[in-house]
Amino acid sequence: MKQIAAVIEMLQKILPGQVVIDPDVLESYARDETIDLVALPDCVVRAQSAQDVAVVLKICNEHDVPVTPRGAGTGVTGGAVAVAGGIVLSMEKLNRILEIDARNLIAVVEPGAITADIQKAAKQHQLLYPPDPASLDTCSIGGNVAENAGGPRAVKYGITGHYVTGLEFVLVDGSIIASGGKYVKNATGYNICGILTGSEGTLAVITKIYLRLVPAPACSVDLLLPFVDLDAAVAAVSSLLQNGIIPATIEFMEQDAIRFVAAHLGQGMPCADAGAHLLLQVEGSTHPACHETLEAIVAACGIDGADVFVAQTALQQERLWKGRRSIREALREESPVLLAEDCVVPRGEIAEFLKHLKEYLRTRSLRSVMFGHAGDGNVHIDVLKDSMPTDQWKAMLPELKREIYRQAIALGGTITGEHGIGCIRREYLGMAKSPEEIELYRRIKHAFDPRGMLNPGKIF
Amino acid sequence: MKQIAAVIEMLQKILPGQVVIDPDVLESYARDETIDLVALPDCVVRAQSAQDVAVVLKICNEHDVPVTPRGAGTGVTGGAVAVAGGIVLSMEKLNRILEIDARNLIAVVEPGAITADIQKAAKQHQLLYPPDPASLDTCSIGGNVAENAGGPRAVKYGITGHYVTGLEFVLVDGSIIASGGKYVKNATGYNICGILTGSEGTLAVITKIYLRLVPAPACSVDLLLPFVDLDAAVAAVSSLLQNGIIPATIEFMEQDAIRFVAAHLGQGMPCADAGAHLLLQVEGSTHPACHETLEAIVAACGIDGADVFVAQTALQQERLWKGRRSIREALREESPVLLAEDCVVPRGEIAEFLKHLKEYLRTRSLRSVMFGHAGDGNVHIDVLKDSMPTDQWKAMLPELKREIYRQAIALGGTITGEHGIGCIRREYLGMAKSPEEIELYRRIKHAFDPRGMLNPGKIF
Repeated sequence: MKQIAAVIEMLQKILPGQVVIDPDVLESYARDETIDLVALPDCVVRAQSAQDVAVVLKICNEHDVPVTPRGAGTGVTGGAVAVAGGIVLSMEKLNRILEIDARNLIAVVEPGAITADIQKAAKQHQLLYPPDPASLDTCSIGGNVAENAGGPRAVKYGITGHYVTGLEFVLVDGSIIASGGKYVKNATGYNICGILTGSEGTLAVITKIYLRLVPAPACSVDLLLPFVDLDAAVAAVSSLLQNGIIPATIEFMEQDAIRFVAAHLGQGMPCADAGAHLLLQVEGSTHPACHETLEAIVAACGIDGADVFVAQTALQQERLWKGRRSIREALREESPVLLAEDCVVPRGEIAEFLKHLKEYLRTRSLRSVMFGHAGDGNVHIDVLKDSMPTDQWKAMLPELKREIYRQAIALGGTITGEHGIGCIRREYLGMAKSPEEIELYRRIKHAFDPRGMLNPGKIF
Repeated sequence: MKQIAAVIEMLQKILPGQVVIDPDVLESYARDETIDLVALPDCVVRAQSAQDVAVVLKICNEHDVPVTPRGAGTGVTGGAVAVAGGIVLSMEKLNRILEIDARNLIAVVEPGAITADIQKAAKQHQLLYPPDPASLDTCSIGGNVAENAGGPRAVKYGITGHYVTGLEFVLVDGSIIASGGKYVKNATGYNICGILTGSEGTLAVITKIYLRLVPAPACSVDLLLPFVDLDAAVAAVSSLLQNGIIPATIEFMEQDAIRFVAAHLGQGMPCADAGAHLLLQVEGSTHPACHETLEAIVAACGIDGADVFVAQTALQQERLWKGRRSIREALREESPVLLAEDCVVPRGEIAEFLKHLKEYLRTRSLRSVMFGHAGDGNVHIDVLKDSMPTDQWKAMLPELKREIYRQAIALGGTITGEHGIGCIRREYLGMAKSPEEIELYRRIKHAFDPRGMLNPGKIF
């Protein structure tokens, strides 16, 4: 890093107008959505092409300057934060939706494209790009691939990795490689797209993405189902799965989640009195077909006669989902500092997991709100700091995290389902992974990035 | 390899009764389903546990003896053939279905388990393991993972890799690693399952597999649709996709495929006079629902009034699918030697691809039969040797393969969709992959298998 000044000067010459060193601007690249994590980069380069990326990587690699790739900065584990200093390589200008190829059911996009924009573009062709992280209106697709983002629809449609059919990416030595393309089956060589997906920007910088699209359902209906408590809601999820009913989403929310959201958005939410909720999306080729499924759901959940809220207009649907997607924001209004975990357990173990965890948190007088993707065992656990003194909170966090992870792992799960390890769970990776597996990560990292210049300080 | 005799002696001591050196028995491990490929291993070890696998790998790695992992030997690119000699490590005894965990929608199996047996076991719980390679009655799940096998259902359900949630595997140094498990979302560390899937046994030996299951559809109906010619059939596929209709399968077959199968099985096949056929499977929650979809399909294909064959009983369905799965066998009765390719192109390009290819083959007076997975652009192209003298056939093959691959790549596709590279397409990998990507494969291979002892001579 001795040569950082010289490197910045070089980059300014080669990429005039794309290199940011103004401290006020750098400030806005010093964090993502991770709580309590700030690190100012030495400079930011806003790449406009794969060639720009190649130049930056090659120079930095040769001069021992770390590079942290960055999408929209909506990650929650510090993936886009330059914790080792050096250069933030921003993809914000490399943001075009290059093509919605309706004939081949493929989207070709640049990493900085916003996920919701891709979905809107696909929808104009009656096509759907299913993965839908809560931040979809602001997150970028490159970040989604780097983190293998999930979202509510994962229960029916799977996660980001299931949709990536090709990637163009740049290695630290500046080579630009295109692997895969507009075809959906591929047994030609190693699954490079597979290992890059979820690698949190530590192996290569992605510069173009091919995404598989599916036909958009003709109709969809959203339901909010009220339950007495979390146990009852989670039992209903098991019952749905056992009955072979897999809606597009099966989200659950504790009462507090709905309550805080209602306060945050300043709007009433339906069924606000219930102890817990499930938010389901049902798809079908016709409205009657959706309603048939809806009735089957209500029957399978054993809540005939309950006050089910059915959102049928776009406005009602948008309102429900805005509520769901605003939970974390609403919680941060309640307690600006909180611990946000996203463990995953086998789907049948959710009730057990939440029960034990709730008990543990109660004995420690910690307020918590649980919500998330009940259909695939991926739980968001937000623990509020509230008025606890900061020192005490910080001192307690490692043991709290350890306990949450320990419980998830004991039930056959793991420590993160969609948010990634980043820098905030690095020291806990060994709870979920054997030393042999972590050593294998090191060797894979070395195969891609022998000098360790790409996003250092992340994962392991 | 100088030490092979000493290594065999060691293994005989450590794994008594599991080491085969009888030349007559070795003979049956000298080939898989690849035409014209035979290589006798020095010995075969039939592993019965991950520990057995670890012992074999560690000793062989230390003594420079190549190891070729082998499932059921149904591959068609030589993946399970010990082309560099050494030891074949057979998984045939490591073949238990350990658990169908209906509550968590997960199957836990050993690599030697037969794919169809897993499907049957899942079905007893009203669950489905979707991937269905044509060899499903005889192929093993470990081979499916190693090759990232597809099958007809891929168009709706995706390929093997989409169902692997965890793997236990053994590295050449003998370390046994378990990555993933009974959970369906995972952002904890690198996607090791992703890179192992499709790695053709060159990176590690898989000893346990966790598979995601889905609810089995309550009803399914199979249709055989007749078309005037291949063009018309392929146009119908486009029309289905454009209309948002994705049945569980969209298989196409040329007239000759049906004709040869009928002769081979000694049974009449329906619609045998048509120039081409589509074989669709429609799933639904009720029979009326299936029939509604069926009518939508017939309308979208523009073949109202045509002689559509609808298979509704298990017997009729089995008969149709037996026909489809017997195509290659039937072709080999017609011409024992043939070239079997499985290129993939963007789905909208199938008609173009087949038209050009057919023309090319006709001008060279080569008989060919085309069939396969129209819905996802994955085409089986079987070119018959017929009475061509063997020397002439062999001399012509490289150029013929090159031309087929060239056409697939020119349309934005690649050289193999589900069969893999193995040893028979190795020299053509450079047509589809850049030198930089192949160099990256080398470095990944080195990270897993630094001395190159695992399945040498495959992929690159």
